[in-house]
Amino acid sequence: MSDIARIEAAARRLRGHIRRTPLLNAPLLDRIAGRQVFVKAECLQWTGSFKARGGWAAVSALPPELRAQGVLACSSGNHAQGVAWAAAAHGVPAVIVMPSDAPAVKIANTRAYGAEVVLYDRATQDRDAIGQALAGARGLSLIPPYDHDEVIAGQGSIGLELAEQAAEAGIAAAPVLTCCGGGGMTAGIALALEARAPGLRVRPVEPAGFDDTARSLAAGRIVRNERPSGSICDAIVTPQPGALTFPILHRLCGPGLTVSDDQALQAMALAFQHLRIVLEPGGAVALAAAIFAPDLGDRVICTASGGNVDPRLFHQVLGRFA
Amino acid sequence: MSDIARIEAAARRLRGHIRRTPLLNAPLLDRIAGRQVFVKAECLQWTGSFKARGGWAAVSALPPELRAQGVLACSSGNHAQGVAWAAAAHGVPAVIVMPSDAPAVKIANTRAYGAEVVLYDRATQDRDAIGQALAGARGLSLIPPYDHDEVIAGQGSIGLELAEQAAEAGIAAAPVLTCCGGGGMTAGIALALEARAPGLRVRPVEPAGFDDTARSLAAGRIVRNERPSGSICDAIVTPQPGALTFPILHRLCGPGLTVSDDQALQAMALAFQHLRIVLEPGGAVALAAAIFAPDLGDRVICTASGGNVDPRLFHQVLGRFA
Repeated sequence: MSDIARIEAAARRLRGHIRRTPLLNAPLLDRIAGRQVFVKAECLQWTGSFKARGGWAAVSALPPELRAQGVLACSSGNHAQGVAWAAAAHGVPAVIVMPSDAPAVKIANTRAYGAEVVLYDRATQDRDAIGQALAGARGLSLIPPYDHDEVIAGQGSIGLELAEQAAEAGIAAAPVLTCCGGGGMTAGIALALEARAPGLRVRPVEPAGFDDTARSLAAGRIVRNERPSGSICDAIVTPQPGALTFPILHRLCGPGLTVSDDQALQAMALAFQHLRIVLEPGGAVALAAAIFAPDLGDRVICTASGGNVDPRLFHQVLGRFA
Repeated sequence: MSDIARIEAAARRLRGHIRRTPLLNAPLLDRIAGRQVFVKAECLQWTGSFKARGGWAAVSALPPELRAQGVLACSSGNHAQGVAWAAAAHGVPAVIVMPSDAPAVKIANTRAYGAEVVLYDRATQDRDAIGQALAGARGLSLIPPYDHDEVIAGQGSIGLELAEQAAEAGIAAAPVLTCCGGGGMTAGIALALEARAPGLRVRPVEPAGFDDTARSLAAGRIVRNERPSGSICDAIVTPQPGALTFPILHRLCGPGLTVSDDQALQAMALAFQHLRIVLEPGGAVALAAAIFAPDLGDRVICTASGGNVDPRLFHQVLGRFA
C-alpha cells in the first residue's frame, strides 16, 4: 500500500471519531509575528493532543482477536492518553508505561480514561524492557509512539485536513512548522502534503538542546540528543529520530528549527491572548518558531499539537509573559 | 422578511468571513458534570467572541453610501471588538464608546483593530447621549449591541450551526444554555432553533445578582437589575432585556438560570483543563450552569461565548481553582 493510500485508509477509520480541528489565525497575532500565522489547533483534539489520531489509527488497525487482548504503550503522556482513549472507545484494556516524572495531569488523565498506569524511573529503569515484559506476559499489542506505520498514517490525517484548509484559505505555498519529537506527526503530515499539497513544505521544530531531528537532517544520518531529559517540552523530547520516520523526514522536510524555552512559553501566552487556546510547551514550539524565527516569509502554517499543561506551569507563564 | 429568512440571509453574508466554531466535549468533563456537556466554542471566533457575527451582519447590511461614512458602537468590550473588526474589514471608520473601567485587553484590542475609542465614566456619564451626539455630528451609523434586527440575525447564525452540529452528534432534544446579557445572541439562537431544531430549547444563564432576564421571564414583563455594574461577568451585564429581544425570549425560552461568580470562575478552570479553551467570566456562565445546575437532564448544550479575559484574572483563576 502506498503511503498516501495508508493515510487515507486511516482517515476513513478516524471519521466520526476524531475532530477536524480548526485552522486558526488572528490579525493581532500576525502583527506581532510580522507575518500571517495559521495555527492547526490540535490541542482541541480529543485527549488534548494529536496523539488521539495515531492511537485510534493503530488500535483500529489491529485484527479484532488481537485487539481484544488489549494494548500497551510507553509514553510520557500524550501518546499515553491517545492510546488509553482509543482503547477505551474500542472496549479493550490498555496498559500504559509512564515515567514517574511525567506531568501529573497527564498521568491522572490517562488513568481517567480507564488505563492501567505502570510508573517507572526514567533515570534507572528501561521502559522498553518493562513494556516488552508486560506485553509478552499478558498478550498485549504494543503501540509505539511514532515508529509504526499506522501511527504515522493516523497523524498524517492532519496533513489531509491541512491540505484542504490551506486551499480554502488560498494558501498554495508556505512552510508548515511542526512540533517534532520522534517524528511520527511530522512524517505523517509530510507524506500527506507530498501527495495533496506539494507547495506546503514541512520544517520540524524542536527545543534548543534537544534538536536531534534538526542535527540528523543536517548530518544526513540519525544523531542522538546528548541529554535524555531536562526540557520543559516534555511531550517532544525523544532520544533520536525514528528508524521509520527519519528517512521520510530526510526525503521531504526542510531544515529543522529550534526555539528557546522562553520562546515556547511566550508562544503559550500569545496563543492564550490571541487565539484563546491552551498549549503545553511542547505543543507551542512550532508556534514559537512561526512568531520568532527569521526568514520564513510572509505566511506560515504551524501545528499547535497539544494542550495538556500542568495548571501551575500555565499560571507561571501568565505571570511572566501575559 | 421572516425571522429565519433574515438569519439565513445574514449567514450567507457571513460565509467566508466568520468561523464555524467547533462543538467541543470531553469525557472527563462529562464525568465532573454528571451529564454530557457540549460546548459551542465561540471564544475561537474572530475577535474572541460571537460578537463578530452580529458586527459583521449589521455592517454588511448597511447601504454602501451610509456604511462608507462609518459606524459607531457603545460597548464594554466584545461588541466593541466585533464592530471594530467588521468595520476595518469593510474598510470603513469605526468609533467605539467604551466605559473607562472596561477590561484593558478589550480596550487595547478595539484600538488594535483600528477603531477610535472614546472612553466615558460609567458612574457619571450617559453613554447613549455621548454616542448619539458623536453619531449625529459625524454621520456615523449606530450599531446597537443587541436590540437590532441584523445584530440578532447575525448572532442567530450560531443557532443554524448548532442545529447542524447537534444533528451530527445525534442530539434531537436538549436544553441549550446561553450566556445572556441584553439577549441578542439568546434571541437569535432561539429563533434559529425554533425553525431548524425545535427539540433544542434555549435557557438563558446570568450571574447571580444580575438576573434581569430570568426575573423578566418569570414576571412576564421587562424587569431591571438593581445595580448597573459590579459583576465580574462584565460582558453580559445589561440593565434589562431589550425591547426587541425580550418578546422573542418570552415566547421561545425556558426559565432563566443563574450561577455564582465562583461557579463561573470554576467553569473557566474546567474549560482550561478539559477543553483547552480560554473563557472570560461572562463567556463561562452557561458552561457553569451546564456543570453545576441541577435538573437539566443527561445532555446539555451551552455557548462559551467569549474569551477576552484579562491575563491577571485568568492567573487568579488558575491559582484558586486549577
